Formats: sequence, structure tokens, C-alpha cells
Amino acid sequence: MQYRTDLAMEQVQQMGGAPGVRASSAAGRGFTRSEVDIDTEEAARQLQKPVGRYITFETRPVHTLSAEERARLSEEIADTLRALLPPFGEVLVVGLGNRHITSDALGSRVVENVLVTRHLRESLPNSLLGRLRGVSALSPGVLGITGIETADMVRGAVEQTHPGAVIAVDALSARACARIGTAIQIADTGIQPGSGVGNHRAGLTRETLGVPVIAVGVPTVVYSTVIVRDALTLLLEAMPEAQGDHTAAADALARRLTRQQLGEMVVTPREIDQMVGELSQVLAMGVNRALQPRLSAQEIAALMNEAM
Amino acid sequence: MQYRTDLAMEQVQQMGGAPGVRASSAAGRGFTRSEVDIDTEEAARQLQKPVGRYITFETRPVHTLSAEERARLSEEIADTLRALLPPFGEVLVVGLGNRHITSDALGSRVVENVLVTRHLRESLPNSLLGRLRGVSALSPGVLGITGIETADMVRGAVEQTHPGAVIAVDALSARACARIGTAIQIADTGIQPGSGVGNHRAGLTRETLGVPVIAVGVPTVVYSTVIVRDALTLLLEAMPEAQGDHTAAADALARRLTRQQLGEMVVTPREIDQMVGELSQVLAMGVNRALQPRLSAQEIAALMNEAM
Amino acid sequence: MQYRTDLAMEQVQQMGGAPGVRASSAAGRGFTRSEVDIDTEEAARQLQKPVGRYITFETRPVHTLSAEERARLSEEIADTLRALLPPFGEVLVVGLGNRHITSDALGSRVVENVLVTRHLRESLPNSLLGRLRGVSALSPGVLGITGIETADMVRGAVEQTHPGAVIAVDALSARACARIGTAIQIADTGIQPGSGVGNHRAGLTRETLGVPVIAVGVPTVVYSTVIVRDALTLLLEAMPEAQGDHTAAADALARRLTRQQLGEMVVTPREIDQMVGELSQVLAMGVNRALQPRLSAQEIAALMNEAM
Amino acid sequence: MQYRTDLAMEQVQQMGGAPGVRASSAAGRGFTRSEVDIDTEEAARQLQKPVGRYITFETRPVHTLSAEERARLSEEIADTLRALLPPFGEVLVVGLGNRHITSDALGSRVVENVLVTRHLRESLPNSLLGRLRGVSALSPGVLGITGIETADMVRGAVEQTHPGAVIAVDALSARACARIGTAIQIADTGIQPGSGVGNHRAGLTRETLGVPVIAVGVPTVVYSTVIVRDALTLLLEAMPEAQGDHTAAADALARRLTRQQLGEMVVTPREIDQMVGELSQVLAMGVNRALQPRLSAQEIAALMNEAM
Repeated sequence: MQYRTDLAMEQVQQMGGAPGVRASSAAGRGFTRSEVDIDTEEAARQLQKPVGRYITFETRPVHTLSAEERARLSEEIADTLRALLPPFGEVLVVGLGNRHITSDALGSRVVENVLVTRHLRESLPNSLLGRLRGVSALSPGVLGITGIETADMVRGAVEQTHPGAVIAVDALSARACARIGTAIQIADTGIQPGSGVGNHRAGLTRETLGVPVIAVGVPTVVYSTVIVRDALTLLLEAMPEAQGDHTAAADALARRLTRQQLGEMVVTPREIDQMVGELSQVLAMGVNRALQPRLSAQEIAALMNEAM
Repeated sequence: MQYRTDLAMEQVQQMGGAPGVRASSAAGRGFTRSEVDIDTEEAARQLQKPVGRYITFETRPVHTLSAEERARLSEEIADTLRALLPPFGEVLVVGLGNRHITSDALGSRVVENVLVTRHLRESLPNSLLGRLRGVSALSPGVLGITGIETADMVRGAVEQTHPGAVIAVDALSARACARIGTAIQIADTGIQPGSGVGNHRAGLTRETLGVPVIAVGVPTVVYSTVIVRDALTLLLEAMPEAQGDHTAAADALARRLTRQQLGEMVVTPREIDQMVGELSQVLAMGVNRALQPRLSAQEIAALMNEAM
Repeated sequence: MQYRTDLAMEQVQQMGGAPGVRASSAAGRGFTRSEVDIDTEEAARQLQKPVGRYITFETRPVHTLSAEERARLSEEIADTLRALLPPFGEVLVVGLGNRHITSDALGSRVVENVLVTRHLRESLPNSLLGRLRGVSALSPGVLGITGIETADMVRGAVEQTHPGAVIAVDALSARACARIGTAIQIADTGIQPGSGVGNHRAGLTRETLGVPVIAVGVPTVVYSTVIVRDALTLLLEAMPEAQGDHTAAADALARRLTRQQLGEMVVTPREIDQMVGELSQVLAMGVNRALQPRLSAQEIAALMNEAM
Repeated sequence: MQYRTDLAMEQVQQMGGAPGVRASSAAGRGFTRSEVDIDTEEAARQLQKPVGRYITFETRPVHTLSAEERARLSEEIADTLRALLPPFGEVLVVGLGNRHITSDALGSRVVENVLVTRHLRESLPNSLLGRLRGVSALSPGVLGITGIETADMVRGAVEQTHPGAVIAVDALSARACARIGTAIQIADTGIQPGSGVGNHRAGLTRETLGVPVIAVGVPTVVYSTVIVRDALTLLLEAMPEAQGDHTAAADALARRLTRQQLGEMVVTPREIDQMVGELSQVLAMGVNRALQPRLSAQEIAALMNEAM
């Protein structure tokens, strides 16, 4: 039975602490910031997440935030990204996932709103040029659309353009519906094989690409098998007399139920189209602010306009 | 707790037979056709569905059908619609729902593929004109987008254009995930208040519009509370010793669980964008064949092309 | 040969002054505001535009304006609309044109960004309710898509919802390429038959709808026959010796040329998709500010968000 | 003054024959097939087109063709492509242009309808596997969107996946409006720098990619300067007395006219959205049939379905 979550903080909550894992959290204005550091390979094995730093912001559903709250969240995302990125050098922003499947389209939607500057060198006035970091962007699609492994596409782009770091944005799956559209995870571990809504076959990591890879993700779905299993578990816990031999039977029942009836179904808000749209705005603003700290929000907006 | 289904056949299966209800089903080539007739007001009250005839086709998920199977399904839909429509007079096809929410967009997508002919009177060659039924089409949007009740918009169009009947297409919610994208319901009852994915406030019926209203719908979602409740019920049934006083506790637990964690979440296939696209093709083909029995499929396709 | 323009100011420039026509213009910060008043039926006949007031703003191409310039332009549009609208009563905003043809989609795109409030009466807090004007919105599509005359659809909606005025937004054709995306016309005359990119068959006027109709339009195309004819005219003017008998031959040549080669071609910017998108934002902001003078821009944005 | 055409046959018609150029044409059922062979570097210099073979099909506007005519046209395209492709080895299909600009979106739309098979090796039944040619697909976007030169993106993909040939699809500009949406050019020369609606900076050729590159293109626009210049030229030809000193003045006038008023305007059908949609279907069907000669049209459609 699959208990998968792409969020390290959920994994820690579920499995509890472990040697080699540090976890902390702090409430901010309108959101909580939690950090999980997985320091040892042993801890990584236990949590099934690679060694690294995972920062997660939790908010109300993004599409219910005010304009000010969104701007503040974008700034927090920007600060976190900036701390993880190398201080200089070009950055390639990669939007993972399938743009034709709304729940998997977050990455490519973010990329559409990223300020791309790598090609502007020749045409910009000097007053701007010295303040711009070189940024390129790529939505490699998915294997079923291109026939090319995402990791191969990105490796090709990295070899052609030699960025100093990659930011990879992806839609995630969570274990709890309450995280959908409300938890934003930023990690210095890159993207792992098998993660994300679309289940990428190969990963995007420093090992595969040769440069640091910062991963940004937000859960857009929970697999429906997960919520059924959770409901059954809670029920069994509430019935002491069911703890005995019947647990196994219940478990088997749950397996059959989910296999037969739920298949590849996901749980998602009815307004997922709107949610993904708004999330991509907030994330893109965070990425743009992280990559262009010497531009004002107005200058970024103006350059986005011209770039179109 | 909400047990809502928009499918009469699910309601009958769940509640069992009743006086005043006739139900039958027959397997066809590649699909099952079932019919529920609710004959008395008493039965209607019990089943919470109005008096009328409900025909449901069940197939494999539409996007896994071959081109031949789709064409055959469209013909069955066409035959059923034709039997419920008056033989002469213009028809207004109404696509309900919110086109910006994929799970609610089925109606407006179907309308985009309906052959509209009402305005062609003056421009068509005589060879075609005598064989064409007058068809108009309308996607009234939803209250939140227009500020106008869907029922008012449709009533306005009916008063201006005087059709002899209305076909109303809508996305439905089901009780079982297995029905998503696989069950097509056609009913002569019109659309009831509170039905559909978008929960229409007012209905579209012969009473409100003054002409027969044929409803066509396909489930695109199951409310996530439903699948959790179903899982718990199945589990309790499998544990004889839990039947006693603990049922109430379990029920309370389920309530709390769904209230806290699931909210307005729906269960849906990850590929809902594609599913709605393909369903709308099959339904529109069925509607077009029902309304234009004297045109070949080629003539319909050619006229669709010109009409654009 | 067709010399059509939907802009009264172009018509006046071309035909020159006439008794019963008053024209004036004033430069503002970043744009010019011109006003044409056609006061008599005789002048209306000469100019082929109905009696009424036409205000036109001219700017640089809207997609090259800064955020501040756009906001200022929206405020000017809002002020002008407010002066033409009745002070109280609901308003229905109608977006004309075909949303599947980019150059004709301006009206329906504006409607997507209008704050609709008519249905909020029951759900809003009192603090907001007293300050909100009731607004509904409608994109009736075009005859080829619905089979229903736009004018009939709008009349149906007016009869069902009883607004005190209608604002009708439409894409226009101009005579000069320089007006595409740069001239915004607001008129108290409603929409005339045959006007707009899509050539509406019937008009939307106080006569047909029973309430005042304010028209808002921006040119998105110039018919290609027009620019060819203009080029030839300019050339002939520059060649004194060609004024004689050869003019007729040249004219015939121009006719043949345009008939054979240009057909229904239009001249338009390559970036028309982006241009229509940005125009619709500016116009919708103007409409929203005109209709909700007691809300701040932030409150409008917040309500738009919730309404989705 | 710019006289650019991306069609070799237009260039030959305009410049007339030359040593080293062979041109022929033949009428087929519903379309004309013409072939231009540029055999020498001297001829290439004169015609400003590289040495190679250019086949062009001319039809009525594609969106007015019947289903049968489209199928026949697709087969002709397939036959021509197959003759230019190496008989074995994987093929990478590249869709050039900007998907957010309708007139430039043809390439990426075609790619969306190409049957991608490269990744299916492991999952397909043997009965299919032996008959499938490996195909991958890529829409690299444009420099302004990605910050990466299209040629670099494609080179990266070629280096990662080692195809035996590339098919590059692009929207073209023509000199005559009558070619928009009616002329389909297939060439073994690859894509040249500066060609296409989007004016690609770098080319895609055997020299830059290391494998044969077949170019497929259809004009979607004519630059508006071209039609004005053509009109003036025709007029001058019709007026013998204008041939003298006044030609220069007229020419200067034309320059000023187009510079001031037309800018980057293009001439295009009002229904360009629909036209590009239908063209992409016909081209994709041609590409699919060329690459998968051992599959029936039904098998291709079924695999397209599954691949989604």
C-alpha cells in the first residue's frame, strides 16, 4: 500500500524524529515556516528522502490570500531561494510536469511567468544590464509527450548553456488534503526519481546535472487511496476491540476497495484550475525576486511585459 | 452527511426497489443500457428524483474506447435522445456549468461541438435546407460569472427563440468512482435544482421553461466525503463485533474526519482534462445525430467546419 | 470599395467638419482625449454615424504602457463611462464578438474581468453591500456559434434582469493601422448594425433594448483593402501628371487587386494575442472603477478573486 | 525595403529562371505540386535560398477542404517526407515558433499532434513494436520565452537522443496573400537563419545538427509592407507616364508610408486561429503517416489516444 508524500515535513511527522534529523518550525505573519534537515545517509534511508535541507511554508489556501499576503509570501520564498542559490552565475529554471493535466501543470505555468534575461545582453541599456542576473527557462514536458526523458532534456540544456544552478518547479502529492495548495516546499536536494504528480522516472540532481539543483514544489493532489486508508486507520484506532485478528481482514478489504474502485483517482479541490493559476503567480514572483534582487517589482513587471 | 448522486440508477441500487419504480438493464455491444422509470410521486419522494424516465449507458472510460466504439455509443445516445424529443420543431441545446472549472465544463464543451443551424435558413442550398432541423445553442455560464441565474438566462433565450424542446447537458456527481466518465444518463425530467457539479440553484424543467427538457449528464467527480464514508461502511460490515454501540462513534469519527480534512475536495481522474474533452466529443456527436437524422456524419462534419 | 471605420473621430477627420458636428480634442498626461458630438440627423446621415456623443482616447499601444499609465488610462475611461451612465440602478455588461477569433474576442475577454455583483446580495457583509452597484455580465457569442441573434440574447437577458443601463464592449475596425490597439472609443449611441470586427447584424441600442446603451470599443484590425487603397491614393496625390484620365484605370486596378488577392484579409499586429489580453485588462479595470466608485482598487481585486 | 518570402517557388516566380535552377509543377486531384531544385551555389546566391530540393503543394485554403481532400493531402505530404527521410533510424520532430502568438504557433501545434513513440519500447506488445519507428518531439519555444537559442535547444536534444534525422515545422511568411494557409513547402535544406514568422536567429541544418533536417512550413502571414509595395508597383506599371523621374518619389513615399504606419503589422485571415488549428491537423497527419508507414490511420489514432 502506497503512503507516498513528496513533503519531507509530512514524512517526519508521520515517522517521528530520528537520529540525524533536525526539525523546527516558526510562525510568521500569516504563515508557518518549518525546516527539516536530514544530515546522515542513515536518516535519509529511514525517511526515504535524500540528505539535505527542506524548508516548507504553510499558509491558508493561496487563492484565499490577499494581495499583500501573497506579496509577503513571495518575498519569503525569494529569501529562502536566495540563501540556497550560489551568489553569482546564470540560473536555469525548469518547469516539470505535463501542461495538459491541470494538477501536473504547476511547473510549466511558473516558467511562463519567470523573467527570462539570458538573451537580453545585447539589447538592454547599461543602467539595467549591470543589475540583471542571467536567467533561462525550460518546460521539458513529459516522456509521453516528447518521447525524451525530462532528465535528458534538461541535461542537454545545461550542457548548451552552462548555468551555475538549476531551479526545478514541480507539482507534488501530499498525504493530507489539508496540504493541497497550502504548503510550499523548497529543498536543496533537487528532484528525486519517482517524485511529483507525474512520477518522473529520472531525477534532476547535482549528480545528474553537475550543478546545484533547488527544488520548489506545492502539493496539488492526494492519491485517493491515501485518504481511504487514513480513514480506516483512524476508525480502527477508535475501536479497541477491532485491534485483534480483524485488522488483517480490514486491511485486505481496504486494499481490495482501493484497487477496484479508486485506481488512479486523485483528491483535489474542485477549483484546481484557479488554484494552480494563482500558485504559479506567487511562485514565479518568488523566483523572480530571488533571481533579480537588484530590480524592483515594477522593473520586473515592466521587463516581463517587454519580453513577451 | 451527504450521500448525493445525480444518477437515478445509483439511487435505485442504493435504496433498492420501491412501488412505482421500474428498473431494467440490458447488455449491448460494449456497453450496458439500463432504464429507471419513476412512475409515482410517492416513489419520486422516496428516491429524491422526480417522476420520469432515466436511461443510463455504462461503458469503459470513454477515453479508452476505440473510434468504432465511440461512434456506436454516439448512435445509441442519438437513438435515445430522438425517442424523447418531439419529432418536429427547433431545439435549444444548453451547456450548463462553469467553463473555467474543468470538472464542471462538460456542458459548455459539448455546446462548442453542437451543429448550430437556426441561423442558416437564408444561406443554405435547398438540397440541405429541407433536411435540417433548426438548432440553437447556449452556454449560460454560472451565477458567479454572470450574476444572472442560469434558469433566467435560458428562459430569456427560450422566450426570444421559441424552441419546441431543450436539451440540457451537465457534469454530474456520482456516488462511486467507477462511474466517473463511464456512465451517461439521459432523462426526460430536465435539470433539478441542486444537481450537477456546480449545484445549480434553480432547475430547468418543463414547468420553468414551458417546453420539454431532456437532460444529458455524465459524472466527472465523486465528493471525497462519499468515498471515505463508503470505506468506513464496508469496514464496519466486515467486522461483526463492531456493529454494536461503536457504530455511532465510528460515524462521528467519519464526520469529523471529512469535515476537518476534506472540505470541498473531489475525487477525479488525474487526466480529467482529457476525459472531459473526449466525453464532450462523444456527447456532441450523439446530440448532432439525434437532431439531424437526415444528414450523414460527413455532412454534419462539413457543416460544423463552415459554421466556425 | 469599402472605407469603413467604426471610429467617429476617423470619420470626421476623413470627411471634414459639417453643420451639426462638434469636434474637439485635448492632450492629457500620456494620451489625447477627443470628443465628437453629432447633434442632428442630417449630420448623422452625412457621417454615417448615429446622433450622439463619442469620446476617444488615443495612447501609445496599450501593451507598451507602464503600469501607472495603464492605471491612469483606466481612471479616465471610468470617469467617462460614469458621466454617461445613469447614477443608480443595475448595469449589464455585454461582451460582443467571437471568443474563438482573437481579433474579435475583446468583448468576451473584458467580460471575464468584470466584477459581477448582482448575485452577491445575500452573501455579502453589510459593510460592503451598501457600497456595491449591482452588475451582471454576458458574452452572447455570435450567430454562427449560437444560432441566436446577439440582439435577441441581450434582449432576453434585459427582460429577465431589468438593468438600468447596458455597457457593450466590442472589437472595432479602423481605417488606419496606427489606431490598432491605441484608440479607445466610448459612445452613448449603443452598437450599430454592421459595426465591429464581426459585423453584427442587429444593433444594441436604447431603441432595441429599452435602456441606455454605452458602447466601448477598440480597433483590433484594419481591413487590408483599406491600406492598399490608401497607399494608391497617396501615390496618385504625389504624381500630378497621374491625376487625369489614368485615375480611373488605377482605381480599377486597385479594385481588381484587392478583390483577387486580399479577400477577407485583415491587417493586425503579429502580437495580437498579447494586445487583446492587455487591452481587456485596461478596459475591465475602467468598467469596474466606473461601476464601483465606492470600492477601492484593492477591494475590487479581492472581490474578483472570491467571485471566481 | 523588404521583399522576403520563405517560399522558394515564390522566389523563382519573382526572379525568373536561372542557370542551376530546375522548376516544374503538376496538377493533382485538388492540388498542385511544384518542385524547385537549386543545384548550384551560384543559383543559391541569386535566389537567396540554399541549395536543395523544395516541394510545394498548393490547395484551396485548408479549412475549406473536405475530410477526404485533407486525407489525400496528408498522404501526399507523407509520401514526399518519406522520400526525403533516411529509411531507418529515429526521427526528432521539432515545432518551431512561439505558441503564444497564433500566427507563429503552427510548429508547436503540429508537435502536439505527432505520435511520439521513442519511449514506448518497453510497454508495447510485440505485434506493434516491430512496426514502429522511434519518434520524439520537441517545441523549443523562442528566445524571448526561454532565453535559450532554439538551435542550442535542438542541438542539446539531438546530442542526448541521437536521432537519424530531424523534421522541423515552422510558420512561414509569403509574398502573396493568396498563399496564406494554401501552400505547404517541404524542403531538404533545413531551416535557415532569419526565416519563419518569428525570424529565428540561428538555423537548423545538417551543418549545425549533424543529421539531415527536413523543413515543413506553411505561410500564415504576409508582411503588410509587402502588399502595399505590390499595390504601388502594379499601379506604376499601369501608368506609362509615371515611369520617369517620379518613380523615385513614389518609392520614397511608399517607404515613408510603410515605416510610419504599418510597422510590424501583418496581413492575415481574420480566422487565423481556426486556420492554424486545421493546418496543424493536416501536417501532423502527414508527418505521422510518413514516419509510421506500417501502421494504419486507425492504429495511429489509437496510439495517440493512449499516449496522452
